[in-house]
Amino acid sequence: MYKAKAYAASSATSPVAATSIARRDPTEDDVQIEILFCGICHSDLHQVRDEWSGMMPTVYPCVPGHEIVGRVTRVGAAVNKFKPGDLAAVGCMVDSDGTCPECKAGFEQFCPNFVLTYNFPDKHLGGVTYGGYSDSIVVKERFVLRVPGNLDLAGAAPLLCAGITTYSPMRHWGVSKGKKVGVVGLGGLGHMAVKFAHALGAHTVVFTTSASKKDDALRLGADEVVLSKDANEMGKHAGSFDFILDAVAAPHDINAYINLLARDGNITMVGAPAEPLAVGVFGLLFRRRSFSGSIIGGIAETQEMLDFCGKHTITSDVEVIPIQKVNEAYERLAKSDVKYRFSIDMASLKSE
Amino acid sequence: MYKAKAYAASSATSPVAATSIARRDPTEDDVQIEILFCGICHSDLHQVRDEWSGMMPTVYPCVPGHEIVGRVTRVGAAVNKFKPGDLAAVGCMVDSDGTCPECKAGFEQFCPNFVLTYNFPDKHLGGVTYGGYSDSIVVKERFVLRVPGNLDLAGAAPLLCAGITTYSPMRHWGVSKGKKVGVVGLGGLGHMAVKFAHALGAHTVVFTTSASKKDDALRLGADEVVLSKDANEMGKHAGSFDFILDAVAAPHDINAYINLLARDGNITMVGAPAEPLAVGVFGLLFRRRSFSGSIIGGIAETQEMLDFCGKHTITSDVEVIPIQKVNEAYERLAKSDVKYRFSIDMASLKSE
Repeated sequence: MYKAKAYAASSATSPVAATSIARRDPTEDDVQIEILFCGICHSDLHQVRDEWSGMMPTVYPCVPGHEIVGRVTRVGAAVNKFKPGDLAAVGCMVDSDGTCPECKAGFEQFCPNFVLTYNFPDKHLGGVTYGGYSDSIVVKERFVLRVPGNLDLAGAAPLLCAGITTYSPMRHWGVSKGKKVGVVGLGGLGHMAVKFAHALGAHTVVFTTSASKKDDALRLGADEVVLSKDANEMGKHAGSFDFILDAVAAPHDINAYINLLARDGNITMVGAPAEPLAVGVFGLLFRRRSFSGSIIGGIAETQEMLDFCGKHTITSDVEVIPIQKVNEAYERLAKSDVKYRFSIDMASLKSE
Repeated sequence: MYKAKAYAASSATSPVAATSIARRDPTEDDVQIEILFCGICHSDLHQVRDEWSGMMPTVYPCVPGHEIVGRVTRVGAAVNKFKPGDLAAVGCMVDSDGTCPECKAGFEQFCPNFVLTYNFPDKHLGGVTYGGYSDSIVVKERFVLRVPGNLDLAGAAPLLCAGITTYSPMRHWGVSKGKKVGVVGLGGLGHMAVKFAHALGAHTVVFTTSASKKDDALRLGADEVVLSKDANEMGKHAGSFDFILDAVAAPHDINAYINLLARDGNITMVGAPAEPLAVGVFGLLFRRRSFSGSIIGGIAETQEMLDFCGKHTITSDVEVIPIQKVNEAYERLAKSDVKYRFSIDMASLKSE
């Protein structure tokens, strides 16, 4: 066991502040990583403020962060894919049972015994797992990802959640050249979706409520931008989309998008509105459309996504901040005031 | 042009009553059919009573019926798949443009220019198309189906709507041996779904609100019956279904069924509740589940379904009635008082 520097919230109403936490010494299949960058996901904010108390109550102190990129500092005797000095990344999970049908099929995200990167029971040290707002982390090799050397590390960090969350459903629903793909909501997730849809060769259309986002959508790779409040403009696209990724967590009219789907078209939610959405069944009956959800991705697919990003030089657009600005970043994130993800430069933690 | 006997409604509040209608003489690619049986679909009732006035207002007189089985009496010069004396069937459509991408892909049900069997503009005679509550019909060969000779004709008639409506999504979503399949709602559609799921080799589970339906569900081919109001019994099946077919048109809690789906499981609506259903997004995110709709099927797939029924000797369970009892049958249908479909013996029309 050793001490690591970290930023933690001590209650739902406390700011995130400097502290010291215990990390385990690497066991034989563990990888110890010096964290260089950690992205800020909206989940961090929800968890720190205990906004999911019904489903996943927060245990304090809470060290959030599951978009982790760093450099290997030590490995256990049985580790063979990493050596000290390698780049490495960790996403939303740090363990799973490895034996259930979901794990065997590469869907660790659906394993009934997975362990999330923070605020989840820690089998090694007791208490809960601590995330990436820290200078160091120790993770089982099976959950450590390789990072292509050509990627900007600050921008690579958000790939571990925002990236895989949008990449996975696109792959599953066959986004590729010749397909018409929509992206609803141009935030942390949505902007990654645009980059992936474009890189996968699809004709990419961004839906936005704000005309001011048009130029940026085009810059990110969109072929077209549609103002979703303009019924006339929406109508022109009726029945034409193969796939739409909906990254909006606020309540909204999903039927307006379902009607844009072609035969066998699918709309997948990666945002998670707290209240149920009202879905008109007639819109699904005609053209055999489907409405579904997706959540992160398995470990093998996360590696595939990182390799794809390496090949296409895809990273998240980030605003790099020192960890001392994390509370300010939370305030801005709550107002969607970031293009498009905050990435914490963990070198800033050395001065604490 | 010739006169055919028929039963028609003359207004939304009139009973269906004997009348005479015009049918076209067969053109070169037409098939003339003596109608032997016509199933009663709930759509007939909706259309006759103008309950879809917003979407598809009824033109009177209205001759309903789109579950038609009969014998060929005459064929046009260019017809080569049918000859007088052959068994033949007609479903929900009698024409489509044949040139659009949907038609070319075998999805005439999604053709923007399809022609429904009744209450749709008739390009040949003007007015609207007249359905199967008649002693004769003339239909373009491309929309005439072959009926396996081993099937009971009264029970075969409902295959043309209730059959294909349930068969098509099961094939699309991969219902087969080794899969666990649920059927919600044991009515005209649901009872066909049970027969198909069983014949396709799936482990078939019927959900019902009424314990009294259990024996009948087992007789139809179900392996298990679950009382949907029993949360404990439902809970035992959580996360275990590959596919659920939901044939309930009344408002109901779809999320209770979504939670029963395994990873990548799909629930397809074939019933069409008038009001939107409230869909909880978290249920879709976990296990990457999907919620979709399906409506009848294309012509080639309808033939495939009839051939499958011939091979497995599958027909609808029907109560055969003379056409003079059609209004009474409507009253009973509105109360779900039929096991499981009415089939009109059109010989009864001869006495009118």
